[in-house]
Amino acid sequence: MRTSLIPLAILFASSSALAAPPQNVGYGIVEDLTTEVGQRLAGTEADARARDWAVARLKALGFANVHVEPFDMPVWVRGAETAEVVGPYPQRLMLAALGNSGATSEGGFTGEIVGFPSLEALKAAPAEQVRGKIVFVWHRMGVTQDGSSYGAYGPIRFSGPGVAAQKGAAAILIRSLGTDHHRLPHTGVTNWPEGTRPIPAAALSVPDAEQLERLLATGKPVSVHLTLTPRMTGVHQSGNVVAEVPGSDRAAGVVLIGGHLDSWDLGTGAIDDGAGVAITTAAAKRILDGPRPKRTIRLVWFGAEEPGGFGGEAYAKAHGAEQHAMAAESDFGSGRVWQFRISLADPKSPLVAEITRAFAPLGVAPAAGEVDGGTDVGPMVLLGVPAMDLVQDGTHYFDIHHTADDTLDKIDPIQLEQNVDVWAAMLRVVANSPDPLARVPQKRGR
Amino acid sequence: MRTSLIPLAILFASSSALAAPPQNVGYGIVEDLTTEVGQRLAGTEADARARDWAVARLKALGFANVHVEPFDMPVWVRGAETAEVVGPYPQRLMLAALGNSGATSEGGFTGEIVGFPSLEALKAAPAEQVRGKIVFVWHRMGVTQDGSSYGAYGPIRFSGPGVAAQKGAAAILIRSLGTDHHRLPHTGVTNWPEGTRPIPAAALSVPDAEQLERLLATGKPVSVHLTLTPRMTGVHQSGNVVAEVPGSDRAAGVVLIGGHLDSWDLGTGAIDDGAGVAITTAAAKRILDGPRPKRTIRLVWFGAEEPGGFGGEAYAKAHGAEQHAMAAESDFGSGRVWQFRISLADPKSPLVAEITRAFAPLGVAPAAGEVDGGTDVGPMVLLGVPAMDLVQDGTHYFDIHHTADDTLDKIDPIQLEQNVDVWAAMLRVVANSPDPLARVPQKRGR
Repeated sequence: MRTSLIPLAILFASSSALAAPPQNVGYGIVEDLTTEVGQRLAGTEADARARDWAVARLKALGFANVHVEPFDMPVWVRGAETAEVVGPYPQRLMLAALGNSGATSEGGFTGEIVGFPSLEALKAAPAEQVRGKIVFVWHRMGVTQDGSSYGAYGPIRFSGPGVAAQKGAAAILIRSLGTDHHRLPHTGVTNWPEGTRPIPAAALSVPDAEQLERLLATGKPVSVHLTLTPRMTGVHQSGNVVAEVPGSDRAAGVVLIGGHLDSWDLGTGAIDDGAGVAITTAAAKRILDGPRPKRTIRLVWFGAEEPGGFGGEAYAKAHGAEQHAMAAESDFGSGRVWQFRISLADPKSPLVAEITRAFAPLGVAPAAGEVDGGTDVGPMVLLGVPAMDLVQDGTHYFDIHHTADDTLDKIDPIQLEQNVDVWAAMLRVVANSPDPLARVPQKRGR
Repeated sequence: MRTSLIPLAILFASSSALAAPPQNVGYGIVEDLTTEVGQRLAGTEADARARDWAVARLKALGFANVHVEPFDMPVWVRGAETAEVVGPYPQRLMLAALGNSGATSEGGFTGEIVGFPSLEALKAAPAEQVRGKIVFVWHRMGVTQDGSSYGAYGPIRFSGPGVAAQKGAAAILIRSLGTDHHRLPHTGVTNWPEGTRPIPAAALSVPDAEQLERLLATGKPVSVHLTLTPRMTGVHQSGNVVAEVPGSDRAAGVVLIGGHLDSWDLGTGAIDDGAGVAITTAAAKRILDGPRPKRTIRLVWFGAEEPGGFGGEAYAKAHGAEQHAMAAESDFGSGRVWQFRISLADPKSPLVAEITRAFAPLGVAPAAGEVDGGTDVGPMVLLGVPAMDLVQDGTHYFDIHHTADDTLDKIDPIQLEQNVDVWAAMLRVVANSPDPLARVPQKRGR
C-alpha cells in the first residue's frame, strides 16, 4: 500500500514550489543540487559552491555537527575537444577527453588510426605498429544488471591510454564505456603508469566509435585531425561534507554512510551521484526524525570521488582509527535495490537474519559474493570496518554514466524512494544492533 | 513467412563486407551514404560529394537516365554556439542554432531571460516585456504515432523567432521540437517575415529547456551569456539526383517517388532522410529487376529539402508541365508503414481497391484525411498530380529528428525492409494501373 501512495505524493510535491514534505527529502536534494549548482567538478569553483550548498541543506534538514573537512588535490580541467576524419571520408566525430588526458597543441594534429578490437590486442601489438599513430580500441561494453561489465571492460579506460603511451602512440581514442546509442561520449578518469608522459586520450560516443569502426572496415587508411586541450591546473582544495545523527552510545561506533558530492563536468551529476547523497541523506533524516538510535550515523558527502577517490582517502586518513560499526555507500544511480551483501567479523551474527527480515518486504534478497564497499568507503573497508553493499538495478546506469545526459530527468522518483526505504530499514537495524560490529580480519591481498 | 525470413538475411548480409544481395539494397544505401558521406548540409561541399555518391550508386544499381539537375540556393552555415547561465546559478546549457538564425558578436552578449509557456503567450505579450531580452518558450511537444504533434508545435520554431524579432527581442531560445530526453538539441529551419532582421535563434535540448524552466521557477532573474555565430554564405549550387525505371508507355505518365538527399549538419541523416531515399530506391530496384512496367518510375533524391524545400520547387519548375500519374515521397524515418491515403481525380477508381488488396497482407490499411504529399513532391501535388501518403509509425521519429543522434544505429533494418515491401507493392499497382490518373481538380486555398 505504501509504495502505491508515496509516488503520487512525490510527484505532486515536486511540481510545487512550496516546501517539500518529509517523504520528498531525497528527490528534493537531487532536484535542487542539480539545478542550483549543476556540474561540480572536484577542486573547481563549482565544487566549492556545491559544498556551501550541501552545508546549508544539511543544516536546514536539522543534522548535527555539519561541517566541511577540506583536503588538497590536483585538478585537471577539460579544454577544446574536436575530431575530424580527414580521409577517406571527411566528417566530424563526437568525443570527450578522459580525465588526466594529455593535450595536443592548440591547433591539433593529424594522425593515422590504428584499430584494435580489445585492450588485449593493443597490449599484444608490437610498438612499431602503434608508434606515432592514433590508437583506436572499439570493444563493446555489454549491459549487465549489476554493472559487472564496467569491471570487465573498464580497463580500456583506466589503463589503455597508459599502454598506448608506453608503446609510443600519439594519442588514443576508445569506444565509450557506455551501453547507450547516443552521441554523448562517456568521460571518466584514466591513470598513467609512473614516469609515463600523458598522451591525448578521449572517448568517442558509441555511434561515433561504430562509425570509425566502419571506416576502418573499408580497408582504406583512415586519418583523423584531433584537437584536445585539457590541462592540469595545479593543486586545489576540495572537501568532504560531514553531518551526523547523534547516537546515544558513542562507544558503540559510528555507522558511516554517504555518496559523493562531486560530479563529472559534462552533466549535472544527477545519477552520479546526486542520487547517492540524496538517498543516504533522506534515509538518515528518517532516523533523525524518529527515536534516537544507539549508534551515531555519520553521513558523508564525499568530495573528489571522480578524479580518483581523494575524499574517501582523506576520510580514512582522518578517521581510520575511530570506532566504526559499519560502512556503506550509494553510488550507482537511483535504480531500485534488489540485493544486499554484508561483511561482518561474525558471519553468524543475528544481525544477518535481522537485516534479511527487514529487507524482505522491500524486495531485497541476500546475494552471494564479496562486499565491494565502493570508492568512497573502500579505504575504511580495507581497514576492516564491517560493510554492506545495497545492490541496485544498474541495467540503464551505463546509458548515462559520465555523460552530458546525467541530468535530473533521468531520476525516477519512485525508484529513488524505494532506495530511501531500504537504506532507512538498514540504518534502523544496524544503528541499534547488539552485535558489537568489531573489525573484520582482512584477507591478504585485499 | 516472408517477413520472418528476410530479417535474418538482412542481418547476415549487413555484417558482411561482400556485395549486398538484392534484398539489402535499402539498408546498404543508408549504411554507405551515412558512412561514406556523413552529414550533407545542402549547398555545401559535403552536399556535392553526396550527389556524386548518389549518381555512382544509382548507376551501379542499373537505373536509367541517372543525372543531376542543379539549382542555386542561399546557404546558411552553423558557427560557434554556447550558452551559459550567468545568474542566479552559473552553468552551461546545450543548444543548437536554428537554420537561418541571426548571429551574436564573436564574444556573445548577456541578456535577461523572459519566459513564455507557448507561442500564443509570446504573441500576446506587449513588446516592452520582450524588448532587448532573450525570449524563452518552453512548450512541450508530445509523442504522436503519426507525427501530428510536429504540426501542432512546429510553429514555435517556424515562426516564433520572427514574432520575437518583431517585438524587439535580442534573441530567442526554444525548447527543442523533440520527444526525447537527451542533451542533443533539435535544429531545423526558421523563417523570418519579410523585412525582419534575423535575431540569434536556437533550440535548447529538452533537459536544458527543463533546467531553464526550473531556474525561472525560482522567481529570481535569470541571465544567460549567449554566443551564436552562424552566417549566410551566399548563393551556392545544390541539385536533385534523378534516375528512372523506363516504362513501356511514355504517354501513360510518370510515377514520381523519392526522398531527400540533403541532411541537417548535426547527424549523418540516417532517418532524415537516408531512409527515404533508401526505401524508394530499393522499391524501384525491385521493379527494375522485374517485368517492365507500363509507366516510367522516376526516382528523385531531392536536394535542399531541409533549408526550405528548394529541390521540390526546382523539380516542379522544371517538370510541372510533364505528364505525371502519381507522386509520393518517403521522409519520416524507417518506422513501418501502417496506413495509406490516396488522392485521385476519380475517387471511385478501381485503383483504390487494388491498392487496398495489395497492402492488406503487409498490414497497411486505408486512412481518413487529406493527402499531404510532403515537402518534396508537395509542389507537384499543388499542381494536381495524384498523390499517396504511405503513413509510417513515427512514435520515435522526433526523438532523433534534426539532432546529432540521427545516425545509422537508429535504423531498424527489419522495419526498413517492410517499407520497401510496401513501396514495391504500390509501384507494381500504380505503374500498371489502367486508370488514366488524370490531374486532381485543386480546392481553393490549398
